[in-house]
Amino acid sequence: MSPSTSRRVGRPRAQERPASGLEPREEVLAVAAELFTTQGYTATSTRAVAERAGLRQASLYHYFDGKEAILAALLEGTVRPSLEVARELVARTAAAAEARLWALCRSDVMLLCRGPHNLGALYLLPEAQTERFAVFHRIRTELKAVYGELLAGTEPGGTLGAAELGLRTDLVFGLTESVILVRRADPARAPLTLAVATADAALRIAGVPQRSLARLRREGEGLLAALG
Amino acid sequence: MSPSTSRRVGRPRAQERPASGLEPREEVLAVAAELFTTQGYTATSTRAVAERAGLRQASLYHYFDGKEAILAALLEGTVRPSLEVARELVARTAAAAEARLWALCRSDVMLLCRGPHNLGALYLLPEAQTERFAVFHRIRTELKAVYGELLAGTEPGGTLGAAELGLRTDLVFGLTESVILVRRADPARAPLTLAVATADAALRIAGVPQRSLARLRREGEGLLAALG
Repeated sequence: MSPSTSRRVGRPRAQERPASGLEPREEVLAVAAELFTTQGYTATSTRAVAERAGLRQASLYHYFDGKEAILAALLEGTVRPSLEVARELVARTAAAAEARLWALCRSDVMLLCRGPHNLGALYLLPEAQTERFAVFHRIRTELKAVYGELLAGTEPGGTLGAAELGLRTDLVFGLTESVILVRRADPARAPLTLAVATADAALRIAGVPQRSLARLRREGEGLLAALG
Repeated sequence: MSPSTSRRVGRPRAQERPASGLEPREEVLAVAAELFTTQGYTATSTRAVAERAGLRQASLYHYFDGKEAILAALLEGTVRPSLEVARELVARTAAAAEARLWALCRSDVMLLCRGPHNLGALYLLPEAQTERFAVFHRIRTELKAVYGELLAGTEPGGTLGAAELGLRTDLVFGLTESVILVRRADPARAPLTLAVATADAALRIAGVPQRSLARLRREGEGLLAALG
């Protein structure tokens, strides 16, 4: 078989290497993150993404079967690492639920503030509400369920009924995601200060008394350091 | 002057009355709210808005000089009424700052949950970050400043330094606006329960102790009832 017939349509050529040094798939995601958040998702074509990534459009389709698949990968990247952290924290049953909730919230805010573009802003796109984004919505729902599980394990949370616990979970999860709005208004914001303050506020909403915060913060930092 | 020469280009004809019974300007806003939040802002043309509103496109331009002007009016409508409430609450210096903060937060959440469409979702549009939306951003900044002023007037807030107070303000304001994300995930949510729980959570973030919440909630409800 000659090299020309062994090459499938759309398969990238060896010489197509993005100038960034990223692998082509990662470069497509980086370029799409920028264009989707600055020009808008609807206004961005896969052609524009391919061109900016230094790929032929056919090569882009080797990695993603269209613009929705790129958006889905970006959205999943804003929740999947947090769900992994969340699962590890759930398993650390020796630690107080309060400290684990603090750690999850701090870690989640850092993820939402990561990278040069505010990908959380894409959550609210009408286009992202369809079945095509079911995996993203499922991961986000699972992540929120862990917030609820940890909240239920806290001392004040143990006294709440199911409806009240669900509402409290919405508030703490909403507070965490609200860094998307803070970041939109103030893109230069230092993430770490915001992450720690948000995690403190999550415990305050949970009903943890002020006098316990410093200790739980230390425990939470210790848990995150142990996760590596 | 005959009726035909007295009519300017683009001025709506008397027989152009939206079927909804709304005034044409309000009907344009209602239709745009639906299309912007369900089909997307970029994907919606002024022509589509005019058609759905039962107006000629030229008539739409009698009320708004383009799509950006419609979006600006919708965005301003999500903050202007809250700023009015905020100013009234600031003037009620006889009431505790805690109760006024509770009232502002409850009122603001109700506004963000009002109407059939989640207009707050439009905050994150890249298109809404330009100079054209300066009035919206100025009103939102003023509203946030009132949150900061009330927070500073609370007993725990009085002990905070400027940086910490700014951060606390971001968190409480972010919590309030996070109902936009809650509403996106669960459009059928009853606003009042969410509004009261969010206002309680705002006081918890402010550092108000649990034992004071029930009293402050009553005072806050009383303030809102007095505003009418």
